[in-house]
Amino acid sequence: MNSANLFLSIPDQLPNELVDLLADNGQVRIERIASRGHASPPGFWYDQQEHEFVLLLQGQAELELLGPQERLSLQAGDYLLIPAHRKHRVVWTSDEIDCIWLAVFYHDRE
Amino acid sequence: MNSANLFLSIPDQLPNELVDLLADNGQVRIERIASRGHASPPGFWYDQQEHEFVLLLQGQAELELLGPQERLSLQAGDYLLIPAHRKHRVVWTSDEIDCIWLAVFYHDRE
Repeated sequence: MNSANLFLSIPDQLPNELVDLLADNGQVRIERIASRGHASPPGFWYDQQEHEFVLLLQGQAELELLGPQERLSLQAGDYLLIPAHRKHRVVWTSDEIDCIWLAVFYHDRE
Repeated sequence: MNSANLFLSIPDQLPNELVDLLADNGQVRIERIASRGHASPPGFWYDQQEHEFVLLLQGQAELELLGPQERLSLQAGDYLLIPAHRKHRVVWTSDEIDCIWLAVFYHDRE
């Protein structure tokens, strides 16, 4: 049985964002991501070939998106759907409370 | 922007489980499900053509699965991956605290 708790197994030291792969069948990839004050480098934008459904489970964060330009402040329970190639970056994540994200990446039907 | 908070917009009255479709491209379907003491009818088993990644965001629940037989008590943050056609049922969900689930249904690559 592939099961666990997404709030557990965050290391004491987190020099980089932690990405745990929960499921991947070549079509869909599900990740648990833990951030602690991490942000995208200045000028860096994600530009992904996959759609991304992303849900903040714990903590607080701010995202910036282009096309159109938007800034979103996220609390626990907030989700958004980022279409493929919509550029986005992480402006800020909380460090007093770890940010725990669930991200689902998927393609369109071929 | 398709965004919202999964902990909000639960109606006062919940005679049946509430299913909100968050994303669906024919390949992947993402749902928010709210249960309040709901359970599968006696003898009923889900037998799905899709894989299901299911995450309990709030509340407590108990699932039963076959092949092999297992009972799982779930707390907030617990997830499991239920392969297609693995039979399962909801034994019990909390009613003092609403159960809020995120479910991702997906197919294998064709």
